[in-house]
Amino acid sequence: MAGTNHKKTTSNEIIGPAIILVVPQLGENIGKAVRAMYNFGLTDLRLVSPRDGWPNEAAIAPAAGADIVLKKTRVYGSTAEAISDLTYVYATTARPRDMIKEVITPKRCCSLMRKHVVSGKKVGLLFGPEKAGLKNDDIALSTAIVSVPLNPSFASINLAQAVGLMSYEWFQTDTDIKDSFMPLLDTKTATSGELYKLFEHMETELQEAGYFRSDQRRSLMRRNLRNIFTRSQLTHEEVSTMRGVVKALATGGGAGWIAEKEEIRKKNKNND
Amino acid sequence: MAGTNHKKTTSNEIIGPAIILVVPQLGENIGKAVRAMYNFGLTDLRLVSPRDGWPNEAAIAPAAGADIVLKKTRVYGSTAEAISDLTYVYATTARPRDMIKEVITPKRCCSLMRKHVVSGKKVGLLFGPEKAGLKNDDIALSTAIVSVPLNPSFASINLAQAVGLMSYEWFQTDTDIKDSFMPLLDTKTATSGELYKLFEHMETELQEAGYFRSDQRRSLMRRNLRNIFTRSQLTHEEVSTMRGVVKALATGGGAGWIAEKEEIRKKNKNND
Repeated sequence: MAGTNHKKTTSNEIIGPAIILVVPQLGENIGKAVRAMYNFGLTDLRLVSPRDGWPNEAAIAPAAGADIVLKKTRVYGSTAEAISDLTYVYATTARPRDMIKEVITPKRCCSLMRKHVVSGKKVGLLFGPEKAGLKNDDIALSTAIVSVPLNPSFASINLAQAVGLMSYEWFQTDTDIKDSFMPLLDTKTATSGELYKLFEHMETELQEAGYFRSDQRRSLMRRNLRNIFTRSQLTHEEVSTMRGVVKALATGGGAGWIAEKEEIRKKNKNND
Repeated sequence: MAGTNHKKTTSNEIIGPAIILVVPQLGENIGKAVRAMYNFGLTDLRLVSPRDGWPNEAAIAPAAGADIVLKKTRVYGSTAEAISDLTYVYATTARPRDMIKEVITPKRCCSLMRKHVVSGKKVGLLFGPEKAGLKNDDIALSTAIVSVPLNPSFASINLAQAVGLMSYEWFQTDTDIKDSFMPLLDTKTATSGELYKLFEHMETELQEAGYFRSDQRRSLMRRNLRNIFTRSQLTHEEVSTMRGVVKALATGGGAGWIAEKEEIRKKNKNND
């Protein structure tokens, strides 16, 4: 579904933003961030002074097999070192800062990053520690602030969720993703001719069952029924299924239906 | 930042899609999903036969204080019961299914849901159990399939992450969210007059320091320098800061700079 192949380098690696976690606290969060990154094709994780060191056993299970990211993860002593090879760095923050720096949405950020990457630049996303968020000194090293729009009365977002959202938005900027599609498996949409045969079959049976009552009602009901089935975009096979349904109801269904009606009548009587 | 006030009902509750977790396994994942939901203003959580029952102690800490969602959570015995009051139901799946049903992106899904909600319809999102995902019978009850575009070689996404992404996309369809803005705090952008005074000040000092060397170079460098500072969109206060910088360099900085140049010269000699 996701056409990322053309974005790969010769080393078979998707070029994407580096994810830089500044002083992350919990190994579990790092692991979950790793999983979310790789869900969206990102592999360049950088840790600035992780509290519990690195490698961290607690990160392995939550990474759920994204070993390629775990293995490549690099550790730095400062944010400045971690971003030194990047041209554009975006700082994620949940709360407003006393800083005169452009604030952009994740979507805008990822669209800018995609543009930079396409023109050969390296980009990165900075994430602060779980509770405190990024320090203002880290933000001052960044190109702009990215702020995830959040419920103002509950803006405390989990670190791995934040990494996931940004990674997701990055993947969204891949232009190959279609808004919607209808999988047709091994079949194909029915032709109008096939549909018309279904209509004729159904309408003949309904006519015989006395369903239409009057000519006026027949013309109205026929239109309604036809609209239902044209709207469903039936496949070749589904037309056959529906013809089987009509046939079964017309031949075997009558008696059952009458019995059921009797049942309902009795029930209503008892409820009175 | 997020202007959701106009979407609130009289009971002060944001109208949004119901999140329906079908047979969720881990309380921790439910709690994390709750947190992510409320991060994006969603409060209607429904659980279909949660493995460890409900309420579940393990969900409380990961919910991180989103008690309003925990308290409102309802439990159902079947998917059909859980969605009976909803008009449109979208089934999230990570893997393709053998079904002829429209597959849409999260973004498209949320834009459709927003339209339905605005016209007074109730909508919901179905999520399957952690490992297996939704059963085909649940998908057959849904309006369409939502598929998060994922790295095809690592498409196993965490349940709470999936809930987070969908909740995020729902919140994105709120039209009040701006792509970018520049916070000006208590200050305002400098006028051209203020900027021009800074340019004159800087250029006078540079002239005196012999920086421009020739008339031709002066005109070029002046243009370059002016472009740097017009591009920065300086505020009133930042213009003052820059004037202080120019003044400090022009009066006190000279000696230091010459000393530093000597230092560099020595160093280069030693390296030869």
